[in-house]
Amino acid sequence: MFDSLAIVGATGAVGQEFLHLLEDHLPHVKRIRLLASSSSAGASIPIRGRPHPVETLAQDSFRRIDLAFFSAGAAVSREYAPTAVRGGTLVIDNSSAFRMDPAVPLVVPEVNPQQLAAHQGLIANPNCAAILLAMVLGPLHRAHPIRRVAVATYQAVSGAGRAAMRELEEQTSAVLAGRPAKPEVFPHLCAFNLFSHNSRVDDSGYNDEERKIIAETGKILGVPELAVTATCVRVPVLRAHCEAVNLTFTEPVSEERTREILASAPGLRLVDDRAANRFPMPCEATGADDVLVGRIRQDLSQPDGRGVDLFLCGDQLRKGAALNAIQIAERIMES
Amino acid sequence: MFDSLAIVGATGAVGQEFLHLLEDHLPHVKRIRLLASSSSAGASIPIRGRPHPVETLAQDSFRRIDLAFFSAGAAVSREYAPTAVRGGTLVIDNSSAFRMDPAVPLVVPEVNPQQLAAHQGLIANPNCAAILLAMVLGPLHRAHPIRRVAVATYQAVSGAGRAAMRELEEQTSAVLAGRPAKPEVFPHLCAFNLFSHNSRVDDSGYNDEERKIIAETGKILGVPELAVTATCVRVPVLRAHCEAVNLTFTEPVSEERTREILASAPGLRLVDDRAANRFPMPCEATGADDVLVGRIRQDLSQPDGRGVDLFLCGDQLRKGAALNAIQIAERIMES
Repeated sequence: MFDSLAIVGATGAVGQEFLHLLEDHLPHVKRIRLLASSSSAGASIPIRGRPHPVETLAQDSFRRIDLAFFSAGAAVSREYAPTAVRGGTLVIDNSSAFRMDPAVPLVVPEVNPQQLAAHQGLIANPNCAAILLAMVLGPLHRAHPIRRVAVATYQAVSGAGRAAMRELEEQTSAVLAGRPAKPEVFPHLCAFNLFSHNSRVDDSGYNDEERKIIAETGKILGVPELAVTATCVRVPVLRAHCEAVNLTFTEPVSEERTREILASAPGLRLVDDRAANRFPMPCEATGADDVLVGRIRQDLSQPDGRGVDLFLCGDQLRKGAALNAIQIAERIMES
Repeated sequence: MFDSLAIVGATGAVGQEFLHLLEDHLPHVKRIRLLASSSSAGASIPIRGRPHPVETLAQDSFRRIDLAFFSAGAAVSREYAPTAVRGGTLVIDNSSAFRMDPAVPLVVPEVNPQQLAAHQGLIANPNCAAILLAMVLGPLHRAHPIRRVAVATYQAVSGAGRAAMRELEEQTSAVLAGRPAKPEVFPHLCAFNLFSHNSRVDDSGYNDEERKIIAETGKILGVPELAVTATCVRVPVLRAHCEAVNLTFTEPVSEERTREILASAPGLRLVDDRAANRFPMPCEATGADDVLVGRIRQDLSQPDGRGVDLFLCGDQLRKGAALNAIQIAERIMES
């Protein structure tokens, strides 16, 4: 049981979503400590009706803290998470710092909860786009091995934080009013525009976000060598990511079989109404716990029947980040 | 030489772009007749400094007209284009009515101009997303046969016409002001949202837009059986379409070779700056003649070196519609 909880990055977009979810989750936690950089410290945030001060993160912030949730970037996790773990705090880290460390479980509770058993005080929460993808690939792969995945993403600006969400709204207002719109958080205009994901592009031409999806999906599914290609794109949407997914199985898998598997998978909701042209959309995924999946169809370019196309959408801040982390904590408490 | 030109659908988004392009193109045309449905007729539109009345489209509208450009939907083309052709008018049809008719050339001038020689009075202008895709696939396929294409689109609202562009702007204003935003042109909210393309979904699960891309790309490239799968999505962008393209060649093709071919292909502009994270974007493709292409990289999920990923963006109203039609007319005049 966790009596005390610290949230590192409490004032960020994911931290705020975490606090919001605490209204319904982890009711046994009695003491909540909010931590942030010194520039954000000093504020007071109400949780369950009581004000909580935001304190400056320090190496001694985790004394007598059972559980810490980190969402303040990889550098902060690298600097502070090891101290917390050594002090006996269970760390769930939303950054990329430790995700590919072989000693660290990388977990989507609906997909690979068994990896939790081997944790050594730190569990990594996967990349948001990788979580959403794994939620759909996990149950399919368990039933019919997947050979190859090609994914194109439509990613909300929330993945870049609260300032990015404000930038989209302010830029859009400016464009509509005919005023100049200057990018600050992003390298390019986001209002009525889209652009390749704003992470570093390596010598292979893939960007860091794509590398995360490729590597983390393989680790979560337990197939490190899984063939995945990804193209990650930011779209002018506030907080739900979509992904167009082209699958190749090792054997023929019908559209009906795919739908049947996904319909009974935990944490997914089928939105696949061809007559009404109703499929997964950010406006319906926003604020929802479930990942929406639809557009399920046989890929006609793979005439051997091994190909399936589908489309998914999930709240980047919720299942893509804070909710998945909370579910990890809940699983550990149950075990 | 064309002395006289009629534009059917002159008040629509593509018709307006056509008129705009006439400032620089087809200078030898002396007489321009603007045609539209009776609800739009009566207006007056200035072209090259002179007012032109918009007349109601009728079966006798094409008398003494050398060239007619149709962009008022498939039903209008089916009803009026045959009369125009019989009267000796060369018709360039932007609708889907005749595109897959084996007797009708379906042409992207940079890619398959040879098909123009066989025309019988009517030439079809391909679907906007198919034109942009063919511009990139054409030169690649000529050098290295393509085996399979998987494409995910990010399509602007302009493909659904001027009312759709207004809807995006008005809905976005409403959402920002906290007012209710009611979809009218589209079945779903378009402000800060995205949704599967608003065309009919058939029993296979593909929608009409995807079917057009699949069939038309094969016809333009001269490989009707080309294996193509597509996922078409509307995004809150005004008038430039993007496409994430995953290619499989019949032989290994390097990233460098792909870039070399595309760099020298007519009508394309490489935007592929990894260090600056600068790739094709709607805000730079809008109003441009060229199709932008970048994110060119070896697809690491195809370890035999036959896979390439890339991303393209082009103005839906310009190269995706009006400009391509004008270029068809210009090619015919040159021949």
